Amino acid sequence: MRTTTGWRAAGSTVLRRTSLDRRDLRPDDIALRVDYCGVCHSDLHAMQTRGPRAKELLVPGHEFTGVVTEVGQEVTTFSIGDRVAVGNIVDSCGACAMCEAGQENFCHSYPTLTYGAADRQDGAMTLGGFAREYVVRDAFAYPLPPGLDPAAAAPLMCAGITVWEPLCRLGVGPGCRVAVAGLGGLGHLAVKLAAALGAATTVISRTRDKLEDARNLGAHDLIASTDTRRMAAARDTFDVVIDTISASHDLAPYLKLVAMDGTLSLLGHLGPITVDVVDLLIGRKKLSSAGSGGRPATAEMLRFCADNGIAADIEVLPSSRVNMALDRLRRGDVRYRFVLDMSDLD
Amino acid sequence: MRTTTGWRAAGSTVLRRTSLDRRDLRPDDIALRVDYCGVCHSDLHAMQTRGPRAKELLVPGHEFTGVVTEVGQEVTTFSIGDRVAVGNIVDSCGACAMCEAGQENFCHSYPTLTYGAADRQDGAMTLGGFAREYVVRDAFAYPLPPGLDPAAAAPLMCAGITVWEPLCRLGVGPGCRVAVAGLGGLGHLAVKLAAALGAATTVISRTRDKLEDARNLGAHDLIASTDTRRMAAARDTFDVVIDTISASHDLAPYLKLVAMDGTLSLLGHLGPITVDVVDLLIGRKKLSSAGSGGRPATAEMLRFCADNGIAADIEVLPSSRVNMALDRLRRGDVRYRFVLDMSDLD
Repeated sequence: MRTTTGWRAAGSTVLRRTSLDRRDLRPDDIALRVDYCGVCHSDLHAMQTRGPRAKELLVPGHEFTGVVTEVGQEVTTFSIGDRVAVGNIVDSCGACAMCEAGQENFCHSYPTLTYGAADRQDGAMTLGGFAREYVVRDAFAYPLPPGLDPAAAAPLMCAGITVWEPLCRLGVGPGCRVAVAGLGGLGHLAVKLAAALGAATTVISRTRDKLEDARNLGAHDLIASTDTRRMAAARDTFDVVIDTISASHDLAPYLKLVAMDGTLSLLGHLGPITVDVVDLLIGRKKLSSAGSGGRPATAEMLRFCADNGIAADIEVLPSSRVNMALDRLRRGDVRYRFVLDMSDLD
Repeated sequence: MRTTTGWRAAGSTVLRRTSLDRRDLRPDDIALRVDYCGVCHSDLHAMQTRGPRAKELLVPGHEFTGVVTEVGQEVTTFSIGDRVAVGNIVDSCGACAMCEAGQENFCHSYPTLTYGAADRQDGAMTLGGFAREYVVRDAFAYPLPPGLDPAAAAPLMCAGITVWEPLCRLGVGPGCRVAVAGLGGLGHLAVKLAAALGAATTVISRTRDKLEDARNLGAHDLIASTDTRRMAAARDTFDVVIDTISASHDLAPYLKLVAMDGTLSLLGHLGPITVDVVDLLIGRKKLSSAGSGGRPATAEMLRFCADNGIAADIEVLPSSRVNMALDRLRRGDVRYRFVLDMSDLD
């Protein structure tokens, strides 16, 4: 066993600095020095919803970048010193139809999550990237392409892939009209990616406050969801509506925006949702969801981002400010993703 | 004004024979002698859910066939004596994007329904096909192709087009795996059409009672929804699940049957429905709905049915038995569609 330093939950809202165990490297493992780790809504969600015992063991963080420091004896794809990125999945069965299709995120026996899950070999609980070191199977680490800033690239590994998958699967490209509801960590990357894919992209936000941001991100317009006249005028006009709103909300206004044969894709942890079947029927609209992605899509997303100069708009904080970051994230006070700089853990 | 005889609601569950007004023919109208009219779940639904006053005016019936008896002065597509079929839409604005796309069923100002709606010109309430005569715009009447039995073809005009649209839009064809949940009026036509389109088709029914029927309709299997072992084994195996169940029900078991990137299409009048977003997320499944169809699809469906010898499996009753038919339909006691013979109204 090896040790590192990281941030572990001490209740529903607070993390404390502590020493953590990491496993000794297996033949197909790499160890990496974590340099930057994004702060995701899922981290908040996990801290708020897990039972007391699981919560106390929780080390969040599942979108991080760093440098390879050690490789297992069978590792051929990484060398010490390589830039590397890790997302929210660190293992899967590798044998089911989903894994064979490169959709490890839908592994029939459930993918091993980067934190709070049981390791497939020794059953130990995985501890996340709010730490100075991580040990991971080489198959679930990705070379960080040259040109991508390691801090701004960290959020691509969860927020980025989560919006990339539905954009690609729903055929977003030139001629496609995309609305992105909610301009936060996921939303701002959805706008950048949709625009880079060639789509005419509109932001739906509570107010017009983020109009200039939306335009800078590549959107051509912003509609305030509180502006009933504009929402009514925009009815049936978007082929794809990417709903990134993380809190429970009425889906009917967003479903109304969807054009004939279009799709409303829900990316928040919304749990049970209710819609009226008639709102699907009129216009043959589809409801779907997305979250994370498989290994091929993750690698493809990183390449696309490197080729198009896309990364997250971030506010970098020393990891010692993690509690403030979580608090501000809870209040929606971030444009658009916090990234923790782990160098203060040395 | 002209008069005919028909069956009008007298409360939530009973129809009474009465004299009805029909409008004098406009230049683009035809009059038809209604020979056969199917009994649809929507008829029950309308009788049970409308307010007292609307209910008293209600003449149900929106899938019927007959013979043209008179044509307006501008009608060129029909002649007296032609076989004709009418479905659940009898007019639309004709100018909106949906009408221009041949999707009159999604007309932005709402299509005029065959009964219980306000006529677009004089505001009079439309009275349905449980009657000996109907007057309709020529554009919303369809030539009944040779070879189709007029009684068995009547249900194609609502049940048929309602299942045809999602089957076509979802790309059902050879190599596609289709499940049809609920083997009733819609379900049995969905099985026939899916099988004729070349799909491997499975029925999901409460019990195995309808296995032989399912096979005769073209399905290769039937899974009892109460058989948890078989339902679990069928998880993620259908590209398209057509859910024709008319009563409110838990959608989760049917969503689980949907394969990666597949669709659950809801055809019942289910109102608000609840699903867990995770059940959409895992496997990138889509939820949609369908109902009725536009004019081009309706004509195409009739051609396909004529070419493939497809019509409904029906039990023909004299129209005087309409109340018994509704009562048995309410109890699910019909294989698979009641059709009223209107000749007893002469």
